[in-house]
Amino acid sequence: MTDKLSLLEALKRTEYQLSGHGFRNMSVLQDAFRDVDALMESDIYGAGPVIEQFQDKLAACLGKEAAVFFPSGTMAQQIALRMWCDEKGTRKVAYHPLCHLEIHEQDGPKKLHHLEPILLADKDRVIELEDVTGLQEEIACLLLELPQREIGGQLPSYETLEAISAYCREKGIRLHLDGARLFEVLPYYQKTAAEICALFDSVYVSLYKGIGGIAGAILAGDKPFMEEAKVWKRRHGGDLISLYPYIVSADFYFEQRVHKMEQYYEEAKELAALFNECHAVQTRPAVPVSNMFHVHFSLPKETVEPILIQLYGETGIGLTGNLRENGEGGCYYEASIGDLYADVPKDKLHSMFRLLDTYLQQG
Amino acid sequence: MTDKLSLLEALKRTEYQLSGHGFRNMSVLQDAFRDVDALMESDIYGAGPVIEQFQDKLAACLGKEAAVFFPSGTMAQQIALRMWCDEKGTRKVAYHPLCHLEIHEQDGPKKLHHLEPILLADKDRVIELEDVTGLQEEIACLLLELPQREIGGQLPSYETLEAISAYCREKGIRLHLDGARLFEVLPYYQKTAAEICALFDSVYVSLYKGIGGIAGAILAGDKPFMEEAKVWKRRHGGDLISLYPYIVSADFYFEQRVHKMEQYYEEAKELAALFNECHAVQTRPAVPVSNMFHVHFSLPKETVEPILIQLYGETGIGLTGNLRENGEGGCYYEASIGDLYADVPKDKLHSMFRLLDTYLQQG
Repeated sequence: MTDKLSLLEALKRTEYQLSGHGFRNMSVLQDAFRDVDALMESDIYGAGPVIEQFQDKLAACLGKEAAVFFPSGTMAQQIALRMWCDEKGTRKVAYHPLCHLEIHEQDGPKKLHHLEPILLADKDRVIELEDVTGLQEEIACLLLELPQREIGGQLPSYETLEAISAYCREKGIRLHLDGARLFEVLPYYQKTAAEICALFDSVYVSLYKGIGGIAGAILAGDKPFMEEAKVWKRRHGGDLISLYPYIVSADFYFEQRVHKMEQYYEEAKELAALFNECHAVQTRPAVPVSNMFHVHFSLPKETVEPILIQLYGETGIGLTGNLRENGEGGCYYEASIGDLYADVPKDKLHSMFRLLDTYLQQG
Repeated sequence: MTDKLSLLEALKRTEYQLSGHGFRNMSVLQDAFRDVDALMESDIYGAGPVIEQFQDKLAACLGKEAAVFFPSGTMAQQIALRMWCDEKGTRKVAYHPLCHLEIHEQDGPKKLHHLEPILLADKDRVIELEDVTGLQEEIACLLLELPQREIGGQLPSYETLEAISAYCREKGIRLHLDGARLFEVLPYYQKTAAEICALFDSVYVSLYKGIGGIAGAILAGDKPFMEEAKVWKRRHGGDLISLYPYIVSADFYFEQRVHKMEQYYEEAKELAALFNECHAVQTRPAVPVSNMFHVHFSLPKETVEPILIQLYGETGIGLTGNLRENGEGGCYYEASIGDLYADVPKDKLHSMFRLLDTYLQQG
């Protein structure tokens, strides 16, 4: 037992939090199922109204012929890339060095599918047209992540997306969208999901980021592609007898939140501006282009952590439960606006920032 | 629209059913979560009390050092076999021709892991010691399924299991248990789960067959093996941010039913005997060794289906929603005893069987 409160414990004791929709606890599921008809039937191995209706709804939303619900985006994206590779007869694909497939999947894409990724662009910026036109090797598929999460959620311009898409079509390169946070970037682009997705051959969206479901993902594309994706889903062990716990909750929170992305985006810009007025703080990007951004402190983690713990206790407002070193002598965390931000009283919020600024100046 | 009632629709209208725990609908989840503390935290990517406590409980139950919860048995078993192959440096494994990996996984084991299965034994019987000692090629792992589901749930003797286990240890062959229905065969063997599992290097059990959860599986083995299995789970896309919808429900129904397997087994023998007294019916096995068996009708499906639909309507008792041709001119279905059988009034049950016998005689 230690007397020292961890940052996460301190966060859990706060009355208000700046990030997210709330703690990930059992109420998330209980709320989603409270008013569901008890006699409604489970999906069975990918069939049945509960899964088919949701897939059809998301296919329509994304402007694609078909959509398939997957237990995870990891599975959905590996499968999409594998299928494009099989189509072209090469294992070469291209993506960003901080792509989920490269850094969060324990080399699953290589160990299971023998994908041979070519890493495009520098780690600290998004992929631009020149990175793609400069490719020396023939690839089956290019993956773009919108927004690029690991660098604070950055985006290429819409014109760049159009140009990359046109180039890929001309060159016979399939374009896949890692749209884990696709709904979250639509207010910045001022486009519909279908308009963005029209630039891509296949699209993955997550149902537990901005949407705030429990888990699960949608992969969408044309019909033959998605039929084959179901076969691969079975091969991966993802064709569960019942996926409805994730589907029903995804649908419940999708209805609640997909129309709130504009609000989250405006709030993210407001919050980032408050951070950028503080000493020793910079957000990346400086002006958010989605509901997320990274908060970088130029002071070391050992300095910032006790400051935050004290701040939470004094103000009742929590920022994060997890500070990471940023490799530049400072530390950072990921801010992601959800339902909770709007609940923080503005006067308390501004007092908190004044206090934070004071502490960081002294830090 | 058709006026003709399908067998499944007819089944759904019956008051009593002989198989299962009830229809797979939303109430299965709602019941499991009704009394769960809303503030209990989700598991996060395989960590947290909700997943760790259940894994520890199942590890103890199976007598293994460690257990990992998987979204599916398909994923768990492919990973177990892949790991044993990597250990030995060969892709050769052996299993029954009707093994789940061979017939239900769309060649996932071959497409994802390049496993090279050697099929042991004839399709209509279980693997015996001679099949194993007669193996000409070196294999990494032998998989035994207890009971062998696709042939009605048959079992080798316990002495055969011991002999195969001893032989495999002597020859450096890893022995993996497909224990999808392990709890269901313990009454026949008169052994504990740990006693059976002690004969195997790795063990998979399902949480939605006899246990009646929503989905999910446990893979158990020694600690280093299970640590590596977690890495493979991430690679497969099975390391979901939250698996608690399956874990909480698995635990809920595990507590209710793991001690009822003896009852289900006795009821299965009773029910099989009633079928075997009817004309044109034979169960496989003739005397069940678990809660399951296959009911074979020597009449064609087109004859039996209308008989069953009429029978359900007249007696209010449903047998199955799905008849399959058995390749011998007749048809069959899988009977699997769960909670529902005990609810069928005995007088109604016997009247139903008298009527069935009459109809089949006329059939």
